[in-house]
Amino acid sequence: MATGEDRATGRAETVARLMRGYQDDTRAIRVSKRYLPSREAIVEILMATLDLMYPGYFGRRGLDQANLEAHVAGQIERLAPMLEREIEQCLCYGREHDAAADAPAPPEGECAPRARRLAEAFLARLPEIRALLVGDVQAAYDGDPAATNLDEIILAYPGVLAVSVYRIAHALHTLGVPMIARIMTEWAHARTGCDIHPGASIGPEFFIDHATGVVIGETTEIGARVKLYQGVTLGALSFPKDASGQIIRGRKRHPTVESDSTLYANATVLGGRTVVGAGSVIGGSVFLAHSVPARSRVSLKEPELRVAPRDGLETADAVFFDI
Amino acid sequence: MATGEDRATGRAETVARLMRGYQDDTRAIRVSKRYLPSREAIVEILMATLDLMYPGYFGRRGLDQANLEAHVAGQIERLAPMLEREIEQCLCYGREHDAAADAPAPPEGECAPRARRLAEAFLARLPEIRALLVGDVQAAYDGDPAATNLDEIILAYPGVLAVSVYRIAHALHTLGVPMIARIMTEWAHARTGCDIHPGASIGPEFFIDHATGVVIGETTEIGARVKLYQGVTLGALSFPKDASGQIIRGRKRHPTVESDSTLYANATVLGGRTVVGAGSVIGGSVFLAHSVPARSRVSLKEPELRVAPRDGLETADAVFFDI
Amino acid sequence: MATGEDRATGRAETVARLMRGYQDDTRAIRVSKRYLPSREAIVEILMATLDLMYPGYFGRRGLDQANLEAHVAGQIERLAPMLEREIEQCLCYGREHDAAADAPAPPEGECAPRARRLAEAFLARLPEIRALLVGDVQAAYDGDPAATNLDEIILAYPGVLAVSVYRIAHALHTLGVPMIARIMTEWAHARTGCDIHPGASIGPEFFIDHATGVVIGETTEIGARVKLYQGVTLGALSFPKDASGQIIRGRKRHPTVESDSTLYANATVLGGRTVVGAGSVIGGSVFLAHSVPARSRVSLKEPELRVAPRDGLETADAVFFDI
Repeated sequence: MATGEDRATGRAETVARLMRGYQDDTRAIRVSKRYLPSREAIVEILMATLDLMYPGYFGRRGLDQANLEAHVAGQIERLAPMLEREIEQCLCYGREHDAAADAPAPPEGECAPRARRLAEAFLARLPEIRALLVGDVQAAYDGDPAATNLDEIILAYPGVLAVSVYRIAHALHTLGVPMIARIMTEWAHARTGCDIHPGASIGPEFFIDHATGVVIGETTEIGARVKLYQGVTLGALSFPKDASGQIIRGRKRHPTVESDSTLYANATVLGGRTVVGAGSVIGGSVFLAHSVPARSRVSLKEPELRVAPRDGLETADAVFFDI
Repeated sequence: MATGEDRATGRAETVARLMRGYQDDTRAIRVSKRYLPSREAIVEILMATLDLMYPGYFGRRGLDQANLEAHVAGQIERLAPMLEREIEQCLCYGREHDAAADAPAPPEGECAPRARRLAEAFLARLPEIRALLVGDVQAAYDGDPAATNLDEIILAYPGVLAVSVYRIAHALHTLGVPMIARIMTEWAHARTGCDIHPGASIGPEFFIDHATGVVIGETTEIGARVKLYQGVTLGALSFPKDASGQIIRGRKRHPTVESDSTLYANATVLGGRTVVGAGSVIGGSVFLAHSVPARSRVSLKEPELRVAPRDGLETADAVFFDI
Repeated sequence: MATGEDRATGRAETVARLMRGYQDDTRAIRVSKRYLPSREAIVEILMATLDLMYPGYFGRRGLDQANLEAHVAGQIERLAPMLEREIEQCLCYGREHDAAADAPAPPEGECAPRARRLAEAFLARLPEIRALLVGDVQAAYDGDPAATNLDEIILAYPGVLAVSVYRIAHALHTLGVPMIARIMTEWAHARTGCDIHPGASIGPEFFIDHATGVVIGETTEIGARVKLYQGVTLGALSFPKDASGQIIRGRKRHPTVESDSTLYANATVLGGRTVVGAGSVIGGSVFLAHSVPARSRVSLKEPELRVAPRDGLETADAVFFDI
């Protein structure tokens, strides 16, 4: 049995091997780096923004006509410095990351003026984001017979939460702080199972029912009044590579879904040149990698059906699953 | 660059636009509303109830024959007032919601007597819920060769957590407080990826393995000893609309799955008139929108298989994904 | 209306019925049991281990060349006693569980020496786990055109989190503390929607994109440089049962996926004798229950496509979904 001394030796050896590993391969380690946005702060920003989008639901209770304006003004004043700080971290992070390995970090404050402008620009967009979200909530009510009222949708529908976070994150992505945007959408992905890249472009009155397993890629374009069910993927086909074998980033790899289309559970649509024409219906579990015209109805072929004999249940199971 | 004064003007403008938005469109805002159940309190009620369902696992440790009864009685006494308060909020919320926009809120205490009766009725159902849950845990053990014992299942199986929360929420839904029920099942949905509507009707010894992506709609009926795998949808077909174009709510839209049936990963079964007959096996990724008789075996047709030539890997990839 | 006295009687009755239930059916209740690992402590162990795998990302900020070694040594010293305590709980739990119902619990300290050895053995494996994880992070970057840098992957990619937790848990599973391992992977499952059993065997440079809905069973074997997309299942076929009708546990029930293969969204591959040959591509939504040779391309058959007439949208919907 190991003595205390053996253990100390073993642990010192482990520390030395870990240190050698960090030094031999400097990927996946952040040492002597100054800037990184804070996940906790970003979630706090998101919560305060959601409170402005849906006053009275998530944050402060007891709002009335007398105190609403003061509450809203107070939230904006609270949000602004948090936003500035995280955007500044994000901008300086980008500079530090792109600099030569031995260059000094950008000095404190250098990214502050731009961060301030971006934070104000984001705040100025909140009214239009709110208008879009009200349309999304109404689309959820109109599209789900199980919904009893708008409050239930705002408080409990994961698809509406995922879309709300996406619309907020998309504004930040467009302004040039993609890392904050991505941390927000991954926060929503963890809670809802719905992975919407903040770079995607999505029209008004969008509804995702049930939400789990939905994936919407970075360069997806979605029209107005589109409805998705759980498990739908709007994804990429194989990626072209450059001469050195590196995949090429930044070009349109994900499909376009035109207005008034519905995609049922677990449908998969792939490819940057794939267009689902307006008013189409894509059936459950369909796998589609080419364009279809407007008003298309795409469905799986009928599955095979056999019926087991009365006294043959176990045998039939074996046949079914072992061929 | 914006001065401090410009920023103040910009923010004041944003506040004014948000306020105009809230006033012009009063959807998705809760102002001058008094009643709403508390998500935090509902989760606390759920945790205390789970502790009574599975004593010694989630809440207090160190239970023995000498202290168990006092612990159980104490939990019931702690649960009762929390339940009453949230049910009262829920009942008053419903009245306030249905009242004319300018009607006064229901007075404090008006819903209290009914809330008290419903809370007691819920508590009285706990023993039978516990009996059902023990059967579900056993079904998980009997149905999963990877399970080593019942403790692992109770502590770690997301499908068992989702079904446990469903059975508790279903009792509340049946008693007439659907919003509390829905908040509970969405709490479980966020943790497990498994979305069971509290209105669904599910027989004994029910097991969902892996759980992620499962959706069970509001009017689904499931018999005894049914087993589902991840990604299974029991959903609705297109919804009939009334003369004014509104979808009709409240009628059976989701399928019936009779006893002793198994649905494999990502199978989708849709429609209120669809019945999966007893003892059936629905294969993975099957999409089914009509009834099948008892003892049916339904499977996808064989997929297409091609084999790439030894030296043609890249080409074959391109062919595979770009046609 | 129930009086206070009626309520007291009703609750006493409920307590008595619950107590009878616990006594009549002792499954799913932990009374007079001493040992159980703590979920909270296991999550803390996991966080400290992730900090050693990715220094500077999740735990302490402000690491530099001067303080890194002290930080690492400090984390190891902090981890060791937590690990020992939970492993000891786990080992004693196993003995207590396997003992006769009326046997006394194993005495305090009896499992401590073995727990200490296993904790040290786990710590000694950290450097090689770190080397594997760096390869996984790089594979994610190389395999996803939407990724902008390694930091974004480590901070935000759920598939990378799920694989990181799996590799840590797999080491503990192999050392003989499967319950701690399972609690870790289920923690990751709840956050990422990705369910990797700690018993699975997975080669280097493994990448799961988007992650939601992926299931990798206990006896799965995966080669090098394999890539999975969301919703992929590597699962079991029907389970053989022994003479008494109990399912047989512990034999290979899940497939083998050889090196350099890619499985697209929602593909399902089942069965312990099923081998996906090296360099294969399995298309989205494919359901495969038999082996395919190296370099196979497997795809769904083309779905059925119909186009609705210009003025027939509602009718076409009805036709599509009600046949």
